[in-house]
Formats: sequence, structure tokens, C-alpha cells
Amino acid sequence: MPLPTPLRGVVPPVCTPLDEAGEVDTASLSRLVEHLIAGGVHGLFALGSTSEVAYLSDEQRGVALETVVNTADGRVPVLAGVIDTTTARVLDHAREAAQLGADALVVTAPFYTRTHPREIAGHFRRIRERVDLPLFAYDLPVSVHSKLSPELVLDLAADGTLAGVKDSSGDEGSLRRLLLALGGREGRASGPVPGFSVLTGSELTVDAALLAGADGVVPGLGNVDPAGYVRLYDAARSGDWPLAAKEQERLAALFDLVDAGPETDMGRSSSALGAFKAALRLLGVIACGDTAFPQIQLGAAAVAEVDARLRAAGLTPVR
Amino acid sequence: MPLPTPLRGVVPPVCTPLDEAGEVDTASLSRLVEHLIAGGVHGLFALGSTSEVAYLSDEQRGVALETVVNTADGRVPVLAGVIDTTTARVLDHAREAAQLGADALVVTAPFYTRTHPREIAGHFRRIRERVDLPLFAYDLPVSVHSKLSPELVLDLAADGTLAGVKDSSGDEGSLRRLLLALGGREGRASGPVPGFSVLTGSELTVDAALLAGADGVVPGLGNVDPAGYVRLYDAARSGDWPLAAKEQERLAALFDLVDAGPETDMGRSSSALGAFKAALRLLGVIACGDTAFPQIQLGAAAVAEVDARLRAAGLTPVR
Amino acid sequence: MPLPTPLRGVVPPVCTPLDEAGEVDTASLSRLVEHLIAGGVHGLFALGSTSEVAYLSDEQRGVALETVVNTADGRVPVLAGVIDTTTARVLDHAREAAQLGADALVVTAPFYTRTHPREIAGHFRRIRERVDLPLFAYDLPVSVHSKLSPELVLDLAADGTLAGVKDSSGDEGSLRRLLLALGGREGRASGPVPGFSVLTGSELTVDAALLAGADGVVPGLGNVDPAGYVRLYDAARSGDWPLAAKEQERLAALFDLVDAGPETDMGRSSSALGAFKAALRLLGVIACGDTAFPQIQLGAAAVAEVDARLRAAGLTPVR
Amino acid sequence: MPLPTPLRGVVPPVCTPLDEAGEVDTASLSRLVEHLIAGGVHGLFALGSTSEVAYLSDEQRGVALETVVNTADGRVPVLAGVIDTTTARVLDHAREAAQLGADALVVTAPFYTRTHPREIAGHFRRIRERVDLPLFAYDLPVSVHSKLSPELVLDLAADGTLAGVKDSSGDEGSLRRLLLALGGREGRASGPVPGFSVLTGSELTVDAALLAGADGVVPGLGNVDPAGYVRLYDAARSGDWPLAAKEQERLAALFDLVDAGPETDMGRSSSALGAFKAALRLLGVIACGDTAFPQIQLGAAAVAEVDARLRAAGLTPVR
Repeated sequence: MPLPTPLRGVVPPVCTPLDEAGEVDTASLSRLVEHLIAGGVHGLFALGSTSEVAYLSDEQRGVALETVVNTADGRVPVLAGVIDTTTARVLDHAREAAQLGADALVVTAPFYTRTHPREIAGHFRRIRERVDLPLFAYDLPVSVHSKLSPELVLDLAADGTLAGVKDSSGDEGSLRRLLLALGGREGRASGPVPGFSVLTGSELTVDAALLAGADGVVPGLGNVDPAGYVRLYDAARSGDWPLAAKEQERLAALFDLVDAGPETDMGRSSSALGAFKAALRLLGVIACGDTAFPQIQLGAAAVAEVDARLRAAGLTPVR
Repeated sequence: MPLPTPLRGVVPPVCTPLDEAGEVDTASLSRLVEHLIAGGVHGLFALGSTSEVAYLSDEQRGVALETVVNTADGRVPVLAGVIDTTTARVLDHAREAAQLGADALVVTAPFYTRTHPREIAGHFRRIRERVDLPLFAYDLPVSVHSKLSPELVLDLAADGTLAGVKDSSGDEGSLRRLLLALGGREGRASGPVPGFSVLTGSELTVDAALLAGADGVVPGLGNVDPAGYVRLYDAARSGDWPLAAKEQERLAALFDLVDAGPETDMGRSSSALGAFKAALRLLGVIACGDTAFPQIQLGAAAVAEVDARLRAAGLTPVR
Repeated sequence: MPLPTPLRGVVPPVCTPLDEAGEVDTASLSRLVEHLIAGGVHGLFALGSTSEVAYLSDEQRGVALETVVNTADGRVPVLAGVIDTTTARVLDHAREAAQLGADALVVTAPFYTRTHPREIAGHFRRIRERVDLPLFAYDLPVSVHSKLSPELVLDLAADGTLAGVKDSSGDEGSLRRLLLALGGREGRASGPVPGFSVLTGSELTVDAALLAGADGVVPGLGNVDPAGYVRLYDAARSGDWPLAAKEQERLAALFDLVDAGPETDMGRSSSALGAFKAALRLLGVIACGDTAFPQIQLGAAAVAEVDARLRAAGLTPVR
Repeated sequence: MPLPTPLRGVVPPVCTPLDEAGEVDTASLSRLVEHLIAGGVHGLFALGSTSEVAYLSDEQRGVALETVVNTADGRVPVLAGVIDTTTARVLDHAREAAQLGADALVVTAPFYTRTHPREIAGHFRRIRERVDLPLFAYDLPVSVHSKLSPELVLDLAADGTLAGVKDSSGDEGSLRRLLLALGGREGRASGPVPGFSVLTGSELTVDAALLAGADGVVPGLGNVDPAGYVRLYDAARSGDWPLAAKEQERLAALFDLVDAGPETDMGRSSSALGAFKAALRLLGVIACGDTAFPQIQLGAAAVAEVDARLRAAGLTPVR
């Protein structure tokens, strides 16, 4: 389906449920897609960091994306993460994603290698030229170890390379400067690049990003509580900022589940991804809460902590 | 004067004007204090990073603080930065600040040395015990190279060590978690530490911080446009979030002056501090725009850029 | 061929020559392999960072590795970098490398994702279990953004997971502690893991690493001057440390070519890799000096600088 | 006394013994100075990081420096660390140090503030102009959070600003490039700045640094075993590199005592400084092993670990 211009709303990065053998559990993934669409989300981001894209083989990536596209079945657009170190490798993933029916691509700057803004610009431009799908830049310094400057994003928006940006940098001041350069919260439509979409990936400050003029959010926690993020988005769109902030607070309290796994035992990423999946299993959405190898799995105490957080946030575990 | 509990509103870190010989220009500093109070600010933060505290000798620190205290003359409270590497050195500054009439102290975690949360806690506790003034923690990872966790701040708030925190970490998610733990935007008064003050130092996201429940802001740019920050604060307090965001956007555009000095020629701190001072000189508040040695001074092109930014933001240079 | 135990000597990471279309130039790559073997190297490391592995598609990786293996033809062992974000993806490359005839694998810790020592250990163990080839850990924090501790390497050496480590961390103190734990410079044979190989990737301090007891070196600059590194290694093995240091100094002066590309124009990696390839082209070894997209290419002034460095180091450009 | 040109040999950063009240124990400090001179050291570095300079009040700094100078009494030169955030503050310490009889000053780049190479150069130049003592640059990125480039050091050496550098960056490749630019291991005397002294602060790779042409070492561990570092230095000077490496290995094993304090309980700096002092107390040199507040003190298990390390290295605790 053609992507709305600009893309707006809640676009969760879809978790990739695995079975006990570590393979993609397509039945669970389909149920998760239904859960998200039922929650009112405006799009789906398959193969993002929260989808454990960095842990999936090419074959598993294909299975996951195909399942999301087929289950969504045109009800909402599907963005596909095509995450790899540099241009040639990203292009291979991008062609595969296009063939599987993705509606847009999400691409980071080169990583593993030390790079340069001119090289990053060339990277995005070539991908846009060679694969005919709307392109989103994915700004995730915690993984990529470089930050996309507002100037670079603006250049790539202005020349039509980028359809949008997913800003997971956590740098809200930089986000503000980008939004301002695009016309500000009320001037976007008459700004230099009216159709450009700015999505925040910072799930604890969505009310703030929307107040500053962002178009939407890509919340990992949206897997667990999509309806909550949709309520937050709707409140903001209707100008009810206290309600938006109140919903954000409920979600921020729920977000504490990402620290369920003890810091001495596992990576912070493993804890967060494990907690999202544990929550989805407790809520009856997916069958197995395992994260991909070599991530350490949450123990029983951590899962109990996740359960408690769900209940405190008004959600109802069924397991 | 006794500090309001909690301290709320706009509390700018007061620039320290210097003369051409590099000494504190007390006449200009007094005019700056009057400019800020006329702008409606709720307090003054002397000897902060924006005050070039790290560049001032002990003697110069004393002159600057004394001038601010005497000029403020009880109209607004004066917080004093007592910035040094570790506890013994901070205590010496703290005693001096108390004697000069500061109403509260602002202290960072130890720096230069690698430290530990238990050591940081001991540091704040001893300073609070030994000098009888309300104590604010100053969270500034860009200078201190460690981050105060919400858990640590909460502990030190709960046991009465801290009266508040100035959060210049730029980590708005972490700020949200702290505010939530304190009761959230509507529950602060009935939360665990009702009088605790949370101030943001992130001058581009003040609307967001206030929406999340922060009590106020410590904006470096507030030297240049104190009335703007007060309007932003007042809009937020009255619940007019679109107006708050609009004022924030104007200030964010003005903030671009911090990059007036070319990156190839000088540090980013020198550019920002030089731009604040150039603006204050252009506005007729201070006599000389020099920053302290060894900072490189802004050239004519950079000052012209500052002038243009002032005019674009509706301010009127008089020089 | 079976890998010597421990692997010792000079094992350059083989550059991957590309043609003007950006495809692997197998004829040039074969000439490069001959150039290295003629220089006396003791092994070849294909598909390392210097080989631009992060820039090559899977197909290009296969072509490059096959060319190196076939050209080497058992005269020296070939180690293959199997570089990807996490275990499942690395395993796919590892199986391909085994099939193409690699004699050993070189693997980093997971990257892109935040990880944990326990997860890193699981990663290496599973790869060793599933693909039956000697395994080297590749410690490259500048790309991977985590450091392998001496303790972790020692554990994985002791249980037979690792055959060796390539230490490109630049942390010579940490390298010393690892070597000491393995028995020290004279006690390795009677130490806890006699066959374990410690190779440094720090091409400016090879004399020091060998003095400390390292077994060899994986020098990117060894593409340009393999005979020089072999002379350095031989001097060290014969105990002539002043001669080793003298040769190291000559190579260190030559190494300055990595900064030929201006910092304002390109990434540091692009400058270094471009300089190695420019040197190989000037020396008549490869046909085209291009690096992989999106790296910026060296300009004429930079190539002239490379030429001058070659001549200063006693090498003779033929173009 | 006039400083040798260049300064060569073993110049330990002298620990500052404290009594139980946290004040400088001048009797213990004098004994420590005698212990170091008896060990054969070639100079003393008072008020360095290992001296806990960042923890000492101005008054305590004065007491410590005066004690070292008076005890040394011209037998070896005394370098004084004058560590503070920026130029004006450093100058105040420098004037004090000159008055107390220091033979040279040791100064870092500005810290706490973000700076620029041009600003750093101005900083060192002004200090050299205003206080007439030989000046050493102290390159300690772990504390200062910027690195002095070989180019900058060379410029400041060539114009007479710097008499030497203490390189504690741990970047041995960068050190090599600096030494090479100064003429290399054999060409220093005929190089561009013959009298310039290059000292390494990396106590685990002293043999390597000396092989590369460094003039000496400033080893924190040299407090505990000054004679060991002197033996290492003498072996290197006489060209017996295997003996130098062997002594380095013994010292590297001893160095493990820096991790005696558990990572979960205290900062790494507190553990290392606590271990040096515990060792000095066990060896009967100083009366009390306490480190300055707010550092956490080593527990009994950690002290027992220090004791064991001393014995394993052939030293004899007397307590």
C-alpha cells in the first residue's frame, strides 16, 4: 500500500516471537500483528532493533517480514528494517524487502566502520536510487555509534532521499532543532519539506515529542500496550496535553519492566527485549518468551516482576 | 533569604562579565542581575558552568558571587555553584559561598577522578552535613563524565540531603523516570518528597520538561532573553501548552547563536559562552563580550551572526 | 591445511582489490596474495576489517575468500573473518568459509546490540561447537564498541573454544596482563594453554608486543610492506631488539600514509584503507585503488602523499 | 635544583599518606620520600593523580608539596602537579608550587569544560610565560577526557613551552609517533628538540616505551616497588631487553593489586589508590592506608589480597 505522506501515528517495531528451537514462530507473530492492529496502530515496523533484527539470519528475516506483510494485508503500512553494516549489504536486504512487499525501508548510517557525514549521505542516496521505496533514516547512536545531525537529515529530506526519520537518539534538543528547521509544530505544512515524517523512538517522552511537532512514535513498549500509545497519540492530536501526559506517565511506569533482568547477569538489551516478550506471553499474545541466542533469558523472578508491572499498569495477564 | 520549597520557575545561570583585562566587571554583572530580575526570573544561579566558573580563580569566584548576592539583595534567591573535583575542595568553596550570603549550593558529583555511586552519595551527604544550606545536585555528564541515576537522586532527596536537582544531562527519559518516582506531574505534593525541586537545564525542551512535571528551568540562554523563558514558564503553569511550545520554538531558534563560532577554530563551549556574552553586549547589558582565557574569542562574523539571531527573535540590539 | 599451534608470525589482513565497478578484482587479489607470500608472511587473514569485509556483499565475500584460498594453495594458512552482528548470522558466514576452505575463523563479539560477557562467551562457544575450525577472537573495540577482557579470553582459551586472539584494542596494558596469565614471555609453553596464539593488530608497537611475548602480528600495513614486518618479526625472534625497533620505526613512519586523506572530507577508515590500496597500486600490485562505496576516494594530492611516504620508506613505486 | 635536560629515569607520583582524620601525615610522607630515594628513583612527582591531588584542599596540597620538597632536599628534582580546570586556577597553584620550591610543573589540558587544541595550546603557553619553571604536559584522557595529539605536543616542545610530557594515555601507537617525530630511539639527540623528555605513565609497558625511545616512567606502582622500576630502567638502558621484560612481568603481576577492591563496592581509582597505600602500610613505610574522602576504603579481604600480591612479587610485609 502507498505510505501516507507524511506517515503519522503509532508505528511499533514488531517483536519477532521465537519458538524454543530459536526459529521464528509465525503463528505467534501473526497474533502479535493482530494484537497491534486491534490496538489501533497506524503502521508496523518489522525487522527493527526491537524485532531482534541483528540476531536473525537472512532466512529468518525473510520469514518474519513475510509474515508481518501477509498478516497486515494492507490494513496498515509495513516498514522494513534493512539493517547491515554498509551500502552493498543493505541493498541486498532492501531488494529482498521490496520483493516481500514492504511499503518502506528503514536504514541506519553505516556501522562497524568509522564513517563521515559525506559518506553517510552517499549511503542513503544510493539506497534510495536503487530500490524504489520510501526511505526512513534510523538514528540510533546506541547501536550505530554515530548521530545523524539535523543538518544532514534536512539535506536528505530536501532532495527527496528521505521520507522520514526515526529518531531514537534520545537527544530531544536535536529533535527540536530538526522540527524547527522543518517549519515548527504549526508550520510543517508550509515548511521546506511538507511530507517529511518525524517519528520519535523515545518511548518515555512521546507527549513531549508530539508537543514539539513530531508526527508519531515507534515505541518498543507499544508491542505490549499498543492501545495505550494510541490513546496518548489521540490525546495529543486533540490538544489534550494533560491527558497525553497522564497516559505517558502510565506507560513510563510500565516501561520499568525493561530492567527486570539483573544487570549483573545479562545485557540491558536482553533484559528489555526479554521483558517485552515475557509480557506478550503473559498477555497470551505469543507462545514463548525466548529471545534469540546468545541473549540470556529472563529468570522466574524477572518474569514475576514483568507480571507485576503489567497489573500495575492495568493490563491483565492471562498466564 | 529562605529558599521557596520547592524552588520553582526560571533560574538562569548568571554569566560572569569580564573586562578586557579578564577581571570580573562588577558593574556589568550588576546590570545583568537587574536585567534578569526585570525579566521576571525566580532565582539566580551564580557560578554555574555558564558563569564560566571553571575559568575563574577563587578570588574571581568570590567577587562574582558577592556582586550577584548584593545586587539581588533578597529580591530573588541566589544559588551558588561550588564546583570542584572532590569533597574537600567543594567544602572550601561552600563555606566561602555561605559566608558571602548564598541561599543554596549547587554541587556536581566528583570529577577528574573515576568514582562510584556510593562515593557520590557520600560526597553529597558530607557537604550537606558540614555546610548548612539547601543543596542542589548538578547533573552535567558532559563536564563531569558520570550521570546521576534517578535512584541515587531519589535516595538523596528522601533522606533530606538534596533540596533539588538541576538536570543538564539531556536525558529526558531519565528525567521522566525521576519525576514519576517523585509522584508524577500531579502527584508531587503527595509524593515521597513533596518539597524536592526538579529543574531542567535543557533549554530547548523546557515545555516538555514542564509538561512532565518539572518545577522550572536553569537556562543559559535565559541570560539573553529572561522574559522569554518567564513567558514560557507562565504559559505552562497556566496550562496553555501550545503557547508554551510556541515560545519554546522562538527561543530554540534564538539558541542557534551558540554555534556562531566556527567549529574549526574554537571549542563548542567557547562558542556558546561567547555568543551569550556577545548578545548581552549587543543588547547593552554588559560592556565587553570577552570570555575567560584560554577560550578563543568570537570574530566579527560570529558577532554579526549573533546580532542577526537576536533580531530574528524580536530582540533589539542597541550596539 | 592444519593451522600451526600456536600460530606465529606475520599474518596480514588481506586488502580486497576492487575494479572501477566496485566488484572484487580477483586477478589483483591473486597478485596481492603472491606479493604477501613472496614477502615471507606466515599466514593470511582474509575478510578482516582491512579487507573491507563490512563493505562486501555475501557474494563478494565468497569471491574474495575463494580467491585467497585458491591462490595461497596451502603454502600458508588462511584465516577467514566471519564478521556479523550476532551468532546466527556469523554461523552462516562460518559455514560458507569452511566450505570455501578456510583454515580458521576470526570472530568478533556481537555488535550493534548491547551485550554482556556471559553472552559473548556463549557466542564464541556456540560458533566453535557448530563449525569445526580453529577459532580466533577478534578484539576490535573501535568497531565492536566492547572490549574482550583478559579474563574472558583466558576462560575461552582454557576450555578450548579459542585457538587465539587478534588484539586490535590498542590496550597494550591489557595485552600484557593476558600474556602474563598465559605464562609470560618465557613461560607460555609451560603455561595453562600452551598452544594459544596471541597476535597483535597494533602495527606501530609490534616490537613491544613481541618483547612482551606475543606470537605475531596482523598488520594492515603489511599489505604494503610484508617483507618489512617479516624482518621485524625475525629480528625479534632472534633477540635483536634494537634491530626490531629500528624496523618498527621505519614502518611507523610509513604508517603515516593512513592520514593522507583530509579529515574534513572523509572518514579515517576510508583514508587508511584508501592509502593502503593507493600504495599497492603505485607498487604495481593491484590495478585500481578504489575503496568500496560509500567510502570517499583519495584525491590526487593524497595519492602523491602516499607516493612520497613509500619512497621515504625505501619502497619503489612503479606507477 | 635545575632539572636534568632531558629528565630521564624513574619519577614516581608520590602517594600522599593521610592520617585517620584525613589530614596529610607528613611523617609518613617523609618516610615515603626516603623509601623512594633509597630505591634509586631519579625524581619525584608530587601532587599527581596518584597523590590524590584531586582530593586535597589547597592547604593540604601545600603541606604535601612542602614536605616532599623539604625531604628530597635537592637529592632528586621534584615535579609538582598543578591540577585544576583551567588557566587562571592552574596559575594560582603554579605560583604556590614555585614558592614552595618545586623544580618543575606538571599541567593537564583544561577539563570540566569542552575545549579545543588552539585553546589547549594557549593554556600551556600562558602558564609557561607566567611562571618560570620547566613545564610538563600531563596527558591523562581518563581524567581530562581529551587527548593531547603528537602534533600539539611537538609544537609546544619546539617553541620551548614544554620541557616534556607525561603520557598516561595508554595509546602506545600515538606515543610511538611522537617519539618518531622527535628523532626516534637513536636520533633524539640530533632531533628537532633534543632536550625534550618523554615519560610514560603506563606502568605495564615500560619496557616497550623505553625500547621505543622514551626517557623514563612515572609509575604509580613505583611507590610500592621503586627499586623494581629502577632495575627495569637500568636493564633497558644497558640494552638487556629480556631482563627489562622479565622485571616488567614481575611488576605487572604485582600491579594486579589495583583490583583488590571489589568493583561493585567502589570506584576503580579508589581500589588502586587504596591498594598502593595498603601496600605501603604493610611494608612499614606509612602509618595508615586510608584514602581521601569520599573514596571507599579497602576491606580486610582486599588488604589480604594486597599482602599476598606483595609476597608473590618478593616483597616482605612487616605488618
